Amino acid sequence: MEGMDHLAHERNRTEFDVDAMKIVWAGSRHAFELSDRMARLVASDPAFRKDDRTRLGRKELFKNTLRKAAHAWKRILELRLTGPCVITEEEAGQLRNFMDEPSFTDLHWGMFVPAIKGQGTDEQQQKWLPLAYKMQIIGCYAQTELGHGSNVQGLETTATFDPDTDEFVIHSPTLTSSKWWPGGLGKISTHAIVYARLITNGQEHGVHGFIVQLRSLDDHMPLPGITIGDIGMKFGNGAYNTMDNGVLKFDHIRIPRNQMLMRVLQVTREGKCVQSNVPRQLIYGTMVFVRQTIVADASTALSRAVCIATRYSAVRRQFGSQDGGMETQVIDYKTQQSRLFPLLASAYAFRFVGEWLKWLYTDVTQRLQAKDFSTLPEAHACTAGLKSLTTAATADAIEECRKLCGGHGYLCASGLPELFAVYVPACTYEGDNVVLLLQVARFLMKTVSQLDSGKKPVGTTAYLGRVQDLLRCCCDVQRDEDWLKPGVVLEAFEARSTRMCVACAKNLSKFENPEDGFAELSADLVEAAVAHCQLIVVSKRKGEPDLTPATARGESDHHNKDEGFIDKLQQDIPGKGVKQQLQNLYYIYVLNLVHKYLGDFLSTGCITPKQASLANDQLRSLYSQIRPNAIALVDAFNYTDHYLGSVLGRSDGNVYPKLYEEAWKDPLNDSVVPDGYHEYVHPMLKQQLRNARL
Amino acid sequence: MEGMDHLAHERNRTEFDVDAMKIVWAGSRHAFELSDRMARLVASDPAFRKDDRTRLGRKELFKNTLRKAAHAWKRILELRLTGPCVITEEEAGQLRNFMDEPSFTDLHWGMFVPAIKGQGTDEQQQKWLPLAYKMQIIGCYAQTELGHGSNVQGLETTATFDPDTDEFVIHSPTLTSSKWWPGGLGKISTHAIVYARLITNGQEHGVHGFIVQLRSLDDHMPLPGITIGDIGMKFGNGAYNTMDNGVLKFDHIRIPRNQMLMRVLQVTREGKCVQSNVPRQLIYGTMVFVRQTIVADASTALSRAVCIATRYSAVRRQFGSQDGGMETQVIDYKTQQSRLFPLLASAYAFRFVGEWLKWLYTDVTQRLQAKDFSTLPEAHACTAGLKSLTTAATADAIEECRKLCGGHGYLCASGLPELFAVYVPACTYEGDNVVLLLQVARFLMKTVSQLDSGKKPVGTTAYLGRVQDLLRCCCDVQRDEDWLKPGVVLEAFEARSTRMCVACAKNLSKFENPEDGFAELSADLVEAAVAHCQLIVVSKRKGEPDLTPATARGESDHHNKDEGFIDKLQQDIPGKGVKQQLQNLYYIYVLNLVHKYLGDFLSTGCITPKQASLANDQLRSLYSQIRPNAIALVDAFNYTDHYLGSVLGRSDGNVYPKLYEEAWKDPLNDSVVPDGYHEYVHPMLKQQLRNARL
Repeated sequence: MEGMDHLAHERNRTEFDVDAMKIVWAGSRHAFELSDRMARLVASDPAFRKDDRTRLGRKELFKNTLRKAAHAWKRILELRLTGPCVITEEEAGQLRNFMDEPSFTDLHWGMFVPAIKGQGTDEQQQKWLPLAYKMQIIGCYAQTELGHGSNVQGLETTATFDPDTDEFVIHSPTLTSSKWWPGGLGKISTHAIVYARLITNGQEHGVHGFIVQLRSLDDHMPLPGITIGDIGMKFGNGAYNTMDNGVLKFDHIRIPRNQMLMRVLQVTREGKCVQSNVPRQLIYGTMVFVRQTIVADASTALSRAVCIATRYSAVRRQFGSQDGGMETQVIDYKTQQSRLFPLLASAYAFRFVGEWLKWLYTDVTQRLQAKDFSTLPEAHACTAGLKSLTTAATADAIEECRKLCGGHGYLCASGLPELFAVYVPACTYEGDNVVLLLQVARFLMKTVSQLDSGKKPVGTTAYLGRVQDLLRCCCDVQRDEDWLKPGVVLEAFEARSTRMCVACAKNLSKFENPEDGFAELSADLVEAAVAHCQLIVVSKRKGEPDLTPATARGESDHHNKDEGFIDKLQQDIPGKGVKQQLQNLYYIYVLNLVHKYLGDFLSTGCITPKQASLANDQLRSLYSQIRPNAIALVDAFNYTDHYLGSVLGRSDGNVYPKLYEEAWKDPLNDSVVPDGYHEYVHPMLKQQLRNARL
Repeated sequence: MEGMDHLAHERNRTEFDVDAMKIVWAGSRHAFELSDRMARLVASDPAFRKDDRTRLGRKELFKNTLRKAAHAWKRILELRLTGPCVITEEEAGQLRNFMDEPSFTDLHWGMFVPAIKGQGTDEQQQKWLPLAYKMQIIGCYAQTELGHGSNVQGLETTATFDPDTDEFVIHSPTLTSSKWWPGGLGKISTHAIVYARLITNGQEHGVHGFIVQLRSLDDHMPLPGITIGDIGMKFGNGAYNTMDNGVLKFDHIRIPRNQMLMRVLQVTREGKCVQSNVPRQLIYGTMVFVRQTIVADASTALSRAVCIATRYSAVRRQFGSQDGGMETQVIDYKTQQSRLFPLLASAYAFRFVGEWLKWLYTDVTQRLQAKDFSTLPEAHACTAGLKSLTTAATADAIEECRKLCGGHGYLCASGLPELFAVYVPACTYEGDNVVLLLQVARFLMKTVSQLDSGKKPVGTTAYLGRVQDLLRCCCDVQRDEDWLKPGVVLEAFEARSTRMCVACAKNLSKFENPEDGFAELSADLVEAAVAHCQLIVVSKRKGEPDLTPATARGESDHHNKDEGFIDKLQQDIPGKGVKQQLQNLYYIYVLNLVHKYLGDFLSTGCITPKQASLANDQLRSLYSQIRPNAIALVDAFNYTDHYLGSVLGRSDGNVYPKLYEEAWKDPLNDSVVPDGYHEYVHPMLKQQLRNARL
């Protein structure tokens, strides 16, 4: 059994070029090669072993993460100095990524360094960045407080300028003002970017970032007046318990004036606030960047779960045995397919929309540098919405994949419990998903309200410019295969979103106070925002009038420079059968949404019940077409067994012997008779409990 | 702050008699008093402390559970012998329930003892039950195997009769035939009911239960030929890791013939199989019982999560501060209400349908004893469906409640991660939810196919007898308040379920081979089954023609002896305002389903888009009505802070100081400078990694 490919019969059925699909998934040959190399480097290094992680207690787990982080840094330095290739920042990031373990270094590289780069003056950057790049200091990002997460403007920590000493006094005036959640804060960081209300000359000037040293660089003890600790256990085994999310209280801590990040706003020696000529909007550019990486991470997490569930669904057999023959592979059941394949399709869809967001970030950044802020609100709404859409769908999908693995999905050895627990905070951090959708809705309502005044909506909202057409149009589907026309699905999604937005706007107009209306109708507004965001995923980016007149946006679409999922279907893609698979996945994604959100489509009259039924027929047919390629489509993610971390998702399909092997590693199996038997169980069995000391 | 009720302002707003509602929730005054007494008894005993559970490593955790189980048993024995009241089996069960920690005793009392009672002959019961009742032996229930969960008939373990020695030889012929998952098996049970394929004289006779001793009663070592171990870590901190789910392999283990459970089928000295006159159907009666308890547990788990999320939503404030005043309580946001209040309503709905299932079980049992098997298929379908519906909804709802608590819901101190992890297996065990829905669908299709032949559908399917009316009817809603007429909602749900069933039946008839059709259309069939099960929850049990002619089922409804949620609204319920609250909750449950499954209602033409929009308006109005009573409605569950186990859900609302306090208990905070700093972090900071030994 060992060394044999138990999924060979599946892989033999593949109808497309898997290697070509790997490139498509990775985005480019360069990206594929880089991640392939780094993944193998990590997987082959026993120091990065992670299969024991869910069995470790908190302290052991955390110490283990410190060891790995140090080892990773050592390897990066070694590769930089001696490797055959000079390791780049990108490669170092990939190495950390494939370690697949949250740690303080994530915040150091992902938040502390970028905050200094983005918000620090040139001088500040010159002073602090070299220290951070060499990890001579380790930093975190202390924004969230015990009492304030979503509402950044409500933060309570104060930074009061003292002109006598030219210092800021950082203080936590209340218990709820304690910093709470920052990763890396609890035990490791020596420094933090602390967000606090700036007060000078008795006046408040909003929330700003300050570089504050937290611990001595000699003995790592917190500096006087600073209370720091870990905030305790979090959801799941392993998961984010490798991270020292922390609590931090300040008792009148003094820092030099030049440790306020002053790229946008400066405080002078006299305590006056002076705006610099750097646009404040740069901060929104950073948010676009961070949320774009979150969308990319969503497709990664989702694809890992789908890979595990798909492979195990092909391994697992249940029912359907005739005359003592083999039972049916569960992946052949339509109930399994109708739950699993839309998630497989979503993984691809999110991957492509994530690629497009990368381009969007570049575009926005270039415009900001040229002081063009015109596209920022739309780009901001678009990334906020996609962050919400993809993280919510991914969290649900991981749990669905776990359920699709039956009972064994509940074992940590399946990898799915930890994947879920480590993923779900994405729904809350960097903007609670519902709060973000309300921001999208607000932007959509503004866009709709400006239509009459002739302001042309741009980018992902450009379709609203055709509001009259979209309120009138009828879906042109008579037979199930009509659903495979790109123009048809696009128009249905555009019409649905438009009609929901217009209905919301109409209902809002009935309120005297618009804010009251927005509050009262917020649940409907969230649904309109979701409809709009789903459209972004399925819509075209390139205007190709010959194929989809409905979406020929011309020059009003500033986002037409990169491509969406559907655009790929119009291109030449190298590799036999690759395009056909992408097309199947695209329509599975789309038609499953039509089915799942059927209430939207029917209530707005965008499609008829008959057309909905045809969509279902088409969907079933697509499931049959994707079925023989399912294993190859998850192989295309190119995940190592180390990275997947799942006995159920093993590439060789040798699940049961390995599950059996894995069981014996549990600490409870260290002894045949468990600790506690003599004190507690034996007296029970022997009726001697009454006198036992428990 | 300490000792103060931070939710007093909320409780002062209550418009109904909370004490009366507590009785309604508990089912009766007796039930309330019993559970109240036992909950307090457990909560006040420091030996039952559980707030440290998520911080313990596996071994420590498990030993701790053994200690608690022994302590609980000791307390039960003490109360039995000396208490002011003699403790009953029911009270003992409640005590274990409020300990709130999965342990081997669950399987001993919940599966091992009932299996002997249900499947053992009188002699077998006389021999084994006294031992089990005194816990002189500890038993588990070994059915599931590594390779077989759902498909019991596919189990591989064999029990071969050896006429030479009058013994059965129990054997695990393959790796996948290893028993896998049974709780209590891994480390503690001395005995097991083992399910195996009976083979006598070279012939197979299906799967049966056998009492097998696993471990020596002297030294607890596994008996020769028996391999046992724990199967390893499961999802979540604490959670089911307190349980020794086990693996078990047999190498030709011999047991006396009289250890086969022979109530239904006997094997004679010669190895012949003889059916007894006890009906096989009794086994289905047991399934009805087990699934009924699962539905009751669903309402409990859901209500705990809702209680936590509701209280914290009233404590937490975010945004909306005007002029430096207090921010808005998040429970006042409509987005929060539209997610939270339907879950609150579901908790009540599931509670009442669970109460009704209790009655159904009694009814079925009485009929079985009188050899009346006529209602069994319907009762079986109904409990299978409700098990699926309530567990799936509850698992999703717990996670939704966690998200509704924002970031802090991710802390174990919120209680929600563990509640989720400990609850989710309910979706898989005792029948995978999708497999069960397919059974329901099969029963529905059979019922529909028999309509023409004049066979009158009974019980929860009685409405299908009015198929012609229900295919034709139109929903009579012109204004939003029309949705508050019980006849209107019932008819809409009956029409929806009927039309979905009939559509499925019609599509099935197009297939030459009905089984092919069933396989191909299984996703649609599952949806029809869900529609039917939701109808069971919202429908009436008592035929009251004056109010709801649509559901006057008369004598064809064998289930009309107990009541559903809606029936309560027609009764006198003591306590000011209680009925009004129940009515609001009922319509929130119903109208939220209309909204969530709008695609069903619209595509079957049961309601119009306009009526859907009116349902939404009504729903918003109901949210406003329930809002001032929300805290009191969760107070009515009468949960102790011990049982809830949540800092966010504290009854006194004193959340933030307690969260802060709780953080410092984490093992990572044992020292200010963490283990591993000197080895791994210091060398990094000091650029000495290259020479460090990691």
